[in-house]
Amino acid sequence: MPKSDNRDRILTHAAQLVRRQGFNNTGIQEILIQAGVPKGSFYFYFKSKEDLGLALIDYYASGITSMIESLLKAAGSSPLQRLEHFFEGFRQLCDQEEWKSGCPIGNLTQEMGTLNLAFQDKLKGVFVRMALGIRECLQEARASEQIDRSLDLDDTADFIVNSWEGALLRVKAEGNTEPLRIFQKMIFGLILKT
Amino acid sequence: MPKSDNRDRILTHAAQLVRRQGFNNTGIQEILIQAGVPKGSFYFYFKSKEDLGLALIDYYASGITSMIESLLKAAGSSPLQRLEHFFEGFRQLCDQEEWKSGCPIGNLTQEMGTLNLAFQDKLKGVFVRMALGIRECLQEARASEQIDRSLDLDDTADFIVNSWEGALLRVKAEGNTEPLRIFQKMIFGLILKT
Repeated sequence: MPKSDNRDRILTHAAQLVRRQGFNNTGIQEILIQAGVPKGSFYFYFKSKEDLGLALIDYYASGITSMIESLLKAAGSSPLQRLEHFFEGFRQLCDQEEWKSGCPIGNLTQEMGTLNLAFQDKLKGVFVRMALGIRECLQEARASEQIDRSLDLDDTADFIVNSWEGALLRVKAEGNTEPLRIFQKMIFGLILKT
Repeated sequence: MPKSDNRDRILTHAAQLVRRQGFNNTGIQEILIQAGVPKGSFYFYFKSKEDLGLALIDYYASGITSMIESLLKAAGSSPLQRLEHFFEGFRQLCDQEEWKSGCPIGNLTQEMGTLNLAFQDKLKGVFVRMALGIRECLQEARASEQIDRSLDLDDTADFIVNSWEGALLRVKAEGNTEPLRIFQKMIFGLILKT
């Protein structure tokens, strides 16, 4: 198997395990066994477990930011409809299997944000990119007079990202997606109304 | 030392360690050493590490819900002022040392919510109590016409709790309390205005 394939296999399997059970709770051997990569070869691909963790943030982030970009930039509907469609899409994913474990970026922030400065710095960057995608959509909505002109777009975009993370967290306590329904209702019914 | 003292010492030290570094990442021996309780005596006080975790939720929850109750029920100011004062007080705590590690209930939900049904069930109950405290305050605010009559009090209270948890999560990525300032501004400036 080419080297890069092994690295990708380690990342993919680590992403699934860490998402489900946490970073500190997942051992390197466990990842290698799942990935079918020979024991002892880990340090050929990653300098340390921390190095793997930082690569995992990029892995999760590229999935999330490309989803945000493609959904928010989709043509054919108004900026607010695209934003609503985006969150409704995630709610439906969450109702299925995949998002039961919450947002992998939120999970890692909760677990590692204050324990490791390199993690914190990288996670901070992902949140900034998520908020920027939403801000662009809000900017368009303002230009087409879909939202109140007095809304501070930076604060609103950050509030939406943070409140969404909080709703995804609450989903893990409730075991259902009711917190996401409430999030969508409050954001689109109260904050983003004309 | 009386038995109950040892149990309390284990709980207090476990609470500090778990809050800082996570539940799965904290070992029983580490807790006992910090607590100065003889090794091997753990199972005299707790049936299992899970049993300790469930006791920790009660420990954290009693602190949080008593703070909510005393602050929200404080006399001498309007319901909305009390609510604002409550969140501003937490923001200031967060600016100091203690809340840098986020909300211990949010942390445990992120880490254990989908891994352990007994944790999930107990954490769910804590969120419900937190939301009820805020709902009572909103109910009073409505009675004195401080907020819009059309607001759904249940959804609004849940949204406030969840968005606050999300803001506390984001604090761990940012390393400052800006997410809490934005939370307060959006909740009190937009959602809870007359």
